[in-house]
Amino acid sequence: MNQEEQIKLLGLWGSPFSKRVEMVLKLKGIPYEYIEEDVYGNKSPMLLKYNPIHKKIPVLIHGGRSIAESLLIVEYIEDTWKTSYPILPQDPYERSIARFWAKYVDQKVMLASWKACWGPEDEREKLVEEAYERLTCLENELGDKQFFGGETIGFVDIAADFIAYWLGIAQEASGVTIMTAEKFPKLQRWSENFVGNNVIKEVLPPKQKLVALFKAQFGNVTSS
Amino acid sequence: MNQEEQIKLLGLWGSPFSKRVEMVLKLKGIPYEYIEEDVYGNKSPMLLKYNPIHKKIPVLIHGGRSIAESLLIVEYIEDTWKTSYPILPQDPYERSIARFWAKYVDQKVMLASWKACWGPEDEREKLVEEAYERLTCLENELGDKQFFGGETIGFVDIAADFIAYWLGIAQEASGVTIMTAEKFPKLQRWSENFVGNNVIKEVLPPKQKLVALFKAQFGNVTSS
Repeated sequence: MNQEEQIKLLGLWGSPFSKRVEMVLKLKGIPYEYIEEDVYGNKSPMLLKYNPIHKKIPVLIHGGRSIAESLLIVEYIEDTWKTSYPILPQDPYERSIARFWAKYVDQKVMLASWKACWGPEDEREKLVEEAYERLTCLENELGDKQFFGGETIGFVDIAADFIAYWLGIAQEASGVTIMTAEKFPKLQRWSENFVGNNVIKEVLPPKQKLVALFKAQFGNVTSS
Repeated sequence: MNQEEQIKLLGLWGSPFSKRVEMVLKLKGIPYEYIEEDVYGNKSPMLLKYNPIHKKIPVLIHGGRSIAESLLIVEYIEDTWKTSYPILPQDPYERSIARFWAKYVDQKVMLASWKACWGPEDEREKLVEEAYERLTCLENELGDKQFFGGETIGFVDIAADFIAYWLGIAQEASGVTIMTAEKFPKLQRWSENFVGNNVIKEVLPPKQKLVALFKAQFGNVTSS
């Protein structure tokens, strides 16, 4: 890989969005240089230059050109390196269904689960119920498949990394429980399969470091 | 086209989301059956069956299988009928940039423009300013190109149909002005190119019918 083809990733160690990109790069065996951003403090001139519209991580820089937003980056990687470890199905209908669920997780399930953990106390019951409903849709979609992508990790699994790993930690840190093995046995089994994958495992941030981050940022909602 | 390949579109005559799909089907010359939904009154059993998660139009039914969400439908149509009138560039980087701006229009510009027209009166100034900022990003991205897609209508143009046609009508109906030829000369020129296209023109709903709809639903904010 020459200079022009160099891949750089601007990311954040604890971000499920940033980790989506790392997971796909590693699953496909694409080497990259990782650059940690200080998004809570000073945004780097590099971040402002390469993602001037949103000024957010992750940003992939490939041959000097940048792509922003994690799921768009994943689709770019898939379009560019199609053959090594396909993330999306080849069939147009299956592709569109994968995109549908990836978007659903990204825009509906993640936000609802996050709000259920750290939204206002007086709205807790309603927020937990909403998260529960959305996770139920996801549980039904998963069914008896090993992964959303079938027998291997695919686009929806990558999009749902937050549900597989971060949500349990957010629950522990906040003291709010939404997803349990009793209520969501299929998602629970899937989470274990996903987190247990050798490539994924290598990318995930350390649990205790995330618990400490969440507690420091948001506090424990049930004991505060 | 046999029974199994029949295409049906569940839509709404005045919806820019629904029209995105019709535009692409017509640009590609794909025959389809259009079924008007009564989303304000009773959602049809067909809509509930084919889009059980969101229960929203548009829904494309192809050979008995359904796809929801306008931009996902457009990508499905593109993936299925690649050769006739390509909507997305072939180059992975150009594709990802088109997806970025389509998403930006869909999730940032449309909502901000809509809120600027019909949001609360006491927030009007702030909302207009926000819409203005986002339209400015879009104006800069367009630059001197005839269409966002270059010399032909592409994914971003289709995504931005609301800006080209509905926004002017929303402005007229609400009495709020955001986009003018003076402030956004490039977007104005683009709107005229887009709306003037023979295929697009055929798909757009009648202006006076939309004005009446908007006024009936939202009233005239400046004269109420």
